[in-house]
Amino acid sequence: MNITLAQAEAAIVAAKQKAAELKTKMNICVVDAGSNLVAFVRMDGAWIGSVDIAQKKAKTAAWFMMNTSALSPLVQPGKPLFNIEHSNSGLITFPGGVVINNAAGQIIGAIGVSGDTVENDHEVATAGAVAVK
Amino acid sequence: MNITLAQAEAAIVAAKQKAAELKTKMNICVVDAGSNLVAFVRMDGAWIGSVDIAQKKAKTAAWFMMNTSALSPLVQPGKPLFNIEHSNSGLITFPGGVVINNAAGQIIGAIGVSGDTVENDHEVATAGAVAVK
Amino acid sequence: MNITLAQAEAAIVAAKQKAAELKTKMNICVVDAGSNLVAFVRMDGAWIGSVDIAQKKAKTAAWFMMNTSALSPLVQPGKPLFNIEHSNSGLITFPGGVVINNAAGQIIGAIGVSGDTVENDHEVATAGAVAVK
Amino acid sequence: MNITLAQAEAAIVAAKQKAAELKTKMNICVVDAGSNLVAFVRMDGAWIGSVDIAQKKAKTAAWFMMNTSALSPLVQPGKPLFNIEHSNSGLITFPGGVVINNAAGQIIGAIGVSGDTVENDHEVATAGAVAVK
Repeated sequence: MNITLAQAEAAIVAAKQKAAELKTKMNICVVDAGSNLVAFVRMDGAWIGSVDIAQKKAKTAAWFMMNTSALSPLVQPGKPLFNIEHSNSGLITFPGGVVINNAAGQIIGAIGVSGDTVENDHEVATAGAVAVK
Repeated sequence: MNITLAQAEAAIVAAKQKAAELKTKMNICVVDAGSNLVAFVRMDGAWIGSVDIAQKKAKTAAWFMMNTSALSPLVQPGKPLFNIEHSNSGLITFPGGVVINNAAGQIIGAIGVSGDTVENDHEVATAGAVAVK
Repeated sequence: MNITLAQAEAAIVAAKQKAAELKTKMNICVVDAGSNLVAFVRMDGAWIGSVDIAQKKAKTAAWFMMNTSALSPLVQPGKPLFNIEHSNSGLITFPGGVVINNAAGQIIGAIGVSGDTVENDHEVATAGAVAVK
Repeated sequence: MNITLAQAEAAIVAAKQKAAELKTKMNICVVDAGSNLVAFVRMDGAWIGSVDIAQKKAKTAAWFMMNTSALSPLVQPGKPLFNIEHSNSGLITFPGGVVINNAAGQIIGAIGVSGDTVENDHEVATAGAVAVK
């Protein structure tokens, strides 16, 4: 089961709205369950460097079927997945990548958000993910 | 002068509509004048391999300030720009990348479309480009 | 708004002069607001390995609209942006990348300097940045 | 023997002057005999896609100690060096890369120019190369 473009666009609308509420400018990316790009927007004035980070957050979440925030503690020095970021032509393992489930609880894709603090990135990504029915 | 997200989204709406008219499924990408990603959509069922091609077509058009269709004859064996595709981590030099001008005639970005014949790709990209005011 | 070549050359002249004062040999790079290369020099005898670092510092500053010295504390183990360097085909997040503003306070580009201690790199980059009017 | 920064800057001044005469906007790159970057400028309004091409032309000329125009016939289909562009993370083998000799006739570096027709690129590169004493 893969997310549709209509679902991805709903996620992006919700994420943009949350970003506006937080007065931030975000890069927002949605990938399908196969980690392939479905939709992307960069809000006016958002960091260009976050174009790639938003995509890598979404892909990382889809590749490992978990939010990137769940990976963050595991990739620290001395921890089991230290330097896993060297795989897959580059992971991003800090918050802002969130899996997207369908109504049946299956993972159908992921959303990645980058452009502000990791807390705000995660909040905007979550707003996008929960907007998908 | 760079394209805004609202302008990029207008281009994508017009391109999606043209793709539907032609009964094709497309990857559609918009970049700004600096060749940085602004917006992207993959229509349901469109080729995954065209995710990258649509982006490279848009970037190629922005990088050289011309439609990719203008490059195609120049890159053939024996022609002046043979194998230019090895630059910039990969160009796409067949039709489907179209520059986007503002009302004053300045190039503010480019649109790249991939998913069908190059004729259809070019037609859909053009529909997107001309929708930007 | 993007930096002009004349402005970039003024930044490089000032940076070279500061490097000479500090008796160091530097690689100096200027990019525009879209993070595309505008000008570069490697002073005689400067580290070849810093050719790439100077460019990545300038790009990192432009991509995130902040000096690389502002990123350094955030990318440490346990900190929010740990291993962000895996994005964008490689960031450099230690000091030496400095944003360039125009007289109106807009970011029009960035300068990256590499070739000595990070303190000297940062000082030379700053000398270049403030020379742009 | 490697080109000095002063020599590279003299080449760039001469190349910029020739580009202005030809009413073109160029990316101009100088590398040393080891193919490492020494100096680079992008003239205002020059193609961003030529940032990389100018560098690859200069490097290709330095790597093989010959002008890129000498390689062009050899890389065509059926010819001995067909698809050599896949080496070295990408070569550019059409005209515009020119070796730089010192007064003793030794190769001390190369200049690469990109931004217009290959004829103009080559002419501007040659103007830069011969300005080095």
